[in-house]
Amino acid sequence: MATGLRRKAPPRLAISMGDPAGIGPEVILKAAAALAGRRAAPSIVVIGDLPAMRAAAARLGNVPVPREWLPGEPPIRLADGLGVFSASKLSPRALRPAHPSVEGAGAAYDYIVTGARMAMRGEVDALVTAPISKHWMNRAGHHFPGHSELLAHLGRARLWRMMFTGGELTIALVTVHMSLAKVPSALTQRNVLDTIRLLAAQLRAIGIARPRIGVLGLNPHAGEDGMFGDEEARVIAPAIRRAQRGGIDATGPLAPDTAFIRPLVSFNFDAAVAMYHDQGLIALKTLEFDRAVNVTLGLPFIRTSPDHGTAFDIAGRGVANPSSMLAAIEYACRAVAGRERAAGRAAA
Amino acid sequence: MATGLRRKAPPRLAISMGDPAGIGPEVILKAAAALAGRRAAPSIVVIGDLPAMRAAAARLGNVPVPREWLPGEPPIRLADGLGVFSASKLSPRALRPAHPSVEGAGAAYDYIVTGARMAMRGEVDALVTAPISKHWMNRAGHHFPGHSELLAHLGRARLWRMMFTGGELTIALVTVHMSLAKVPSALTQRNVLDTIRLLAAQLRAIGIARPRIGVLGLNPHAGEDGMFGDEEARVIAPAIRRAQRGGIDATGPLAPDTAFIRPLVSFNFDAAVAMYHDQGLIALKTLEFDRAVNVTLGLPFIRTSPDHGTAFDIAGRGVANPSSMLAAIEYACRAVAGRERAAGRAAA
Repeated sequence: MATGLRRKAPPRLAISMGDPAGIGPEVILKAAAALAGRRAAPSIVVIGDLPAMRAAAARLGNVPVPREWLPGEPPIRLADGLGVFSASKLSPRALRPAHPSVEGAGAAYDYIVTGARMAMRGEVDALVTAPISKHWMNRAGHHFPGHSELLAHLGRARLWRMMFTGGELTIALVTVHMSLAKVPSALTQRNVLDTIRLLAAQLRAIGIARPRIGVLGLNPHAGEDGMFGDEEARVIAPAIRRAQRGGIDATGPLAPDTAFIRPLVSFNFDAAVAMYHDQGLIALKTLEFDRAVNVTLGLPFIRTSPDHGTAFDIAGRGVANPSSMLAAIEYACRAVAGRERAAGRAAA
Repeated sequence: MATGLRRKAPPRLAISMGDPAGIGPEVILKAAAALAGRRAAPSIVVIGDLPAMRAAAARLGNVPVPREWLPGEPPIRLADGLGVFSASKLSPRALRPAHPSVEGAGAAYDYIVTGARMAMRGEVDALVTAPISKHWMNRAGHHFPGHSELLAHLGRARLWRMMFTGGELTIALVTVHMSLAKVPSALTQRNVLDTIRLLAAQLRAIGIARPRIGVLGLNPHAGEDGMFGDEEARVIAPAIRRAQRGGIDATGPLAPDTAFIRPLVSFNFDAAVAMYHDQGLIALKTLEFDRAVNVTLGLPFIRTSPDHGTAFDIAGRGVANPSSMLAAIEYACRAVAGRERAAGRAAA
């Protein structure tokens, strides 16, 4: 196979800096410092604001020095500094940590758009996004419920899902940003099946040859044989059977409250499908908040994100925990490697 | 104060044996063995079937020997054996572990009724219930969604709630056994407020003078300022304000998915109020299944239960984990002591 002979280049990642007033710059720099010493470190370009990154680096010390990078230039190795594509010229006001502004939120939006375009043009292998504030992004005139919806719009993805993964638990969500009252009628066999398929494809892409997928019910005790709701029998079970007929090892509907009990340290499945936002995220965040990564399935490019917000309240103080950002970068690298393996197999 | 002079008797507990074919007999015996060596061990009477308890003890070995106890007799100390009030004469068929039957389920129902009556007459200080099968109880002609509903019926409790507590997390539920689709319309200011109050009273009863209660929202991100549902603004926030005006330290509505992240090892509150079954129980069971205890608030007597089922699949094999039953017994003792302290204060 030709792939075995090629010298493998490190994955190239774009990281959008997120809201300049949040902890984005800080967790990016800390994660870059953690990666700099590794042999297989990715090459990184931050899409953001060079003065903002430099100010954060000066506050922190002992992190790779932010250096300007321009499109078309070769990537800057982490050992030599942290490449920053400066996509904004923020006023001093918008540069202050912990003081969000419409100007900063507008710039954060631009970083995402630029990063997504670079990823779609193949200039980078994946996009990692640092946190933005939905509230401030809306005030800046960009009306999206969150990052994922914006990226789906930019990527013209009609079928996409949110997935979250920690060290132990991986969960894809059938529905996301809607009131709980709307969830039951939003569930269809089609969108449950689509979620199972997207999740199975993602798991295969990162090297799990035959993923085992647990599918949660909607109701307490998964409906207790129809006593508390019929969505399990009417929607979820048929979707599972269709997934099974398609060769996917899916089981369920599982009782939601006991699905995430680890019988012998680890779970009985590689990943789970949850019917609504909090059903999946209560388990994931309660169990492994620090290391959780948000992955968008169904985009035309690889996208990951730490699973925390801008944390304006602690921004600029140097106390933010970079482990979720680091996990997001590592997961992106893993997905890139998986995609290259698959491409290698296809070419062979 | 007179209470200081009285010699304190150990708490007297009734434990209903649960389904004879389940793991009830086994976890009771193992928990009794763990308690037998303690100086402040409660006195226990099992309401169940003497041959069933004896057979389980013979299988296990090294546990207190089941001995018949009759109403009116002094309690049997655990050092001398485990008192059993034999409330059934099961056929050999119904005695087999892992083989549930209508006969066994009917007997399990009788144990609960007997235990509840003893507790209401003050013959015991608290009732601990071993697991039954809802399915088999229904087949035996007793139509209750579960233990709690049956006990509320027996205790004529019009206002009651389910509470779950582990080592770290304590959660009371506003709604329980209903389909998710019915939850939004079932929430009222009144029943949210009632839940906060019952929970606060329970926490005070076990010695937390000024409990801090976190109240969850219903929708993702607690509605995100009304973007995903209005129940937070319309129902939950007003109930929290009314609780606060009544002197309860309640905060919320909290975003459900981040409510159970422990910022510095422990939570920011002593207990939480969840709006629906899985919202509370996904967090609790994922985090601390082994040690979770189910407590019914609002009954005219103290009632606790382990937070697991009959586990017919492993019954009779000696491998059941008694830690949840032990925790249920310990919590009942703590609640009895709290009630006595409160009675002492009232008498002083």
